[in-house]
Amino acid sequence: VHVSELNNDSVELGEYRHYMQKEIHEQPQALANTLESVCNSQSLVPGIFGAEANNIFPQVENILILACGTSHHAGMVARYWLEEIAGIQCTVEIASEYRYRSSVTRPGTLVVTISQSGETADTLAALNHAKTTGHLFTLAICNVPESAIIRQSKLRLLTRAGPEIGVASTKAFTTQLAALFLLTLVLAKLRGRLDTEREQQFLHELRHLPSAVQKVLALEPEIAELSKQFADKHHALFLGRGLHYPIALEGALKLKEISYIHAEAYPAGELKHGPLALVDKDMPVVSVAPNDALLEKLKSNLQEVRARGGELYVFADANTHIKEAEGVHILQMPEHAGFLSPILHTIPLQLLAYYVALQKGTDVDKPRNLAKSVTVE
Amino acid sequence: VHVSELNNDSVELGEYRHYMQKEIHEQPQALANTLESVCNSQSLVPGIFGAEANNIFPQVENILILACGTSHHAGMVARYWLEEIAGIQCTVEIASEYRYRSSVTRPGTLVVTISQSGETADTLAALNHAKTTGHLFTLAICNVPESAIIRQSKLRLLTRAGPEIGVASTKAFTTQLAALFLLTLVLAKLRGRLDTEREQQFLHELRHLPSAVQKVLALEPEIAELSKQFADKHHALFLGRGLHYPIALEGALKLKEISYIHAEAYPAGELKHGPLALVDKDMPVVSVAPNDALLEKLKSNLQEVRARGGELYVFADANTHIKEAEGVHILQMPEHAGFLSPILHTIPLQLLAYYVALQKGTDVDKPRNLAKSVTVE
Repeated sequence: VHVSELNNDSVELGEYRHYMQKEIHEQPQALANTLESVCNSQSLVPGIFGAEANNIFPQVENILILACGTSHHAGMVARYWLEEIAGIQCTVEIASEYRYRSSVTRPGTLVVTISQSGETADTLAALNHAKTTGHLFTLAICNVPESAIIRQSKLRLLTRAGPEIGVASTKAFTTQLAALFLLTLVLAKLRGRLDTEREQQFLHELRHLPSAVQKVLALEPEIAELSKQFADKHHALFLGRGLHYPIALEGALKLKEISYIHAEAYPAGELKHGPLALVDKDMPVVSVAPNDALLEKLKSNLQEVRARGGELYVFADANTHIKEAEGVHILQMPEHAGFLSPILHTIPLQLLAYYVALQKGTDVDKPRNLAKSVTVE
Repeated sequence: VHVSELNNDSVELGEYRHYMQKEIHEQPQALANTLESVCNSQSLVPGIFGAEANNIFPQVENILILACGTSHHAGMVARYWLEEIAGIQCTVEIASEYRYRSSVTRPGTLVVTISQSGETADTLAALNHAKTTGHLFTLAICNVPESAIIRQSKLRLLTRAGPEIGVASTKAFTTQLAALFLLTLVLAKLRGRLDTEREQQFLHELRHLPSAVQKVLALEPEIAELSKQFADKHHALFLGRGLHYPIALEGALKLKEISYIHAEAYPAGELKHGPLALVDKDMPVVSVAPNDALLEKLKSNLQEVRARGGELYVFADANTHIKEAEGVHILQMPEHAGFLSPILHTIPLQLLAYYVALQKGTDVDKPRNLAKSVTVE
């Protein structure tokens, strides 16, 4: 019982200007809480997903993740983890699409739904649609213990982010990622793809995660300064690749939601297949966590748009040898986190959206037209 | 041997102002050419995909489609067809993402690559990556018979679109869709999911397709008029659902490529999960082929943004009972095409992009920063 998360302290602003800022800064604690039981133990067990996990997980042959919005981005990251680390085939689908189409039901599918509130209408409908097509194994990742999605799923992992007040999701997203990483490790172990040494290494990285996030949060003043260059912009392109493509999507969504800048994300390789036509001095390009090779490709793509004033903002991984250049701005991340890198790279993008919104003077915690939980279709 | 497609007539502009306009209007003929052998026969046979198809197709248990840009959108439509009509599980992945990640190789996978030129660097690299991970069955859908992708695949279907000069792909896309629909029908038949009556019905619809496209092309003056309302815009949202979500993506990509308007597509159900914050008088919302129920949901979503001047443009299916209203503009399509509807709904979006680009005075056939075939990474 996690009553501590619902007390008054956690819903007061304290030193922060907005709930979103507060919730961004709560991420080290939210991650520590979500990972608590795992980090205190010496090894990973299926039981953290519920009593039936010991029975269900060995029967799982593939994964179907259903979610909306930010939770869908978490699912997209998980697909890369699940296929690479656990060797388990994974499909991720937007809940509102899945519920209305005729799809193929395969045996041994674990249907994973992700929702902060656990009441998202399309995600609940998708879960029920999955059940009617014969899916037996269901797992919910959710921030609210008593929610509908938890009640209607056989297995669950509660994120312990605490109440999230800001409409733009922050700590709910990063704790969803942590939960999905645990799912990946538990399934990898069951499938014989995680030896003891690697398991201990991952547990070590998870224990280290809250302090790693704390170090990224220290970039706040630098990002606040950077945000000024976006204050007069109406557009932005966000690029990522692999594990960081969904993070580019999430960064663009944050900027959209609270600054009303039309930000759009692409997997970096698609730039030349159309969106490059948009790039000029009014369209900054934000690149999330490129490695050195990718950066060279990007620079070469952008050479011809440099003449039109296109600017590249690089949120660089710590192990890259990226240097500032004319039209190329670098934000250097403090350390490299391997598979957990998407969690760390989310933080500066949340901060960027927050400070750009401050520049624009929008209602950060309650952006226009949006509701916190989308409980109607 | 299709030498007729390479003669001089087809690369001269004739009565048209731009190659793109010419190529949009060539679609009835391009589709007729692509479907010729099938429409002349009484039933569908695997052999249209090559001699080895009779051996390979019965072993196919699932499909993996790899492509970039517009071709990727064609693959996304095919996924809906393949799962619903043929009952075969299908995954679609951007080639530049697939080639660099560690994915799970399943037995019985047919790897389908799609490329107009057959020389797209990322798609070729993805095909070769798929082979190195153990995939045995490969099929290329391509417009150039002597291309690398055709040479490197066991099976193939050539689209017979003829030379495409405009950088923004038009007739290559709709003929790719026709080819993918044939693949769906052939696999459905082999899997016992297509009885003779239904097969004859689909063949009838395919024979009728060129004239149905011709009727949609007759909307050109109406769309040219409509385009004036986009001439001063810098943004647009395109919404679709199911089969028409990839068409919304394609419509947005066309507008991006040649008018430099920042158009972005969403599956309609995701609107409330973020992008609705962007909607105001400067952000028109284009809705592709909604049914009546979806339109009611959309109208209700947009009620609160109406006060900020948000305008809704509906490219309506012929069987809908949609009426103009304040802030709701309707373009009524001439007839409903069932599963082939995505092909028909592509046409007005191509024309919209073309006429908006004319308004903007851009270089329609050679938009800035883009190349016709992306043969480097």
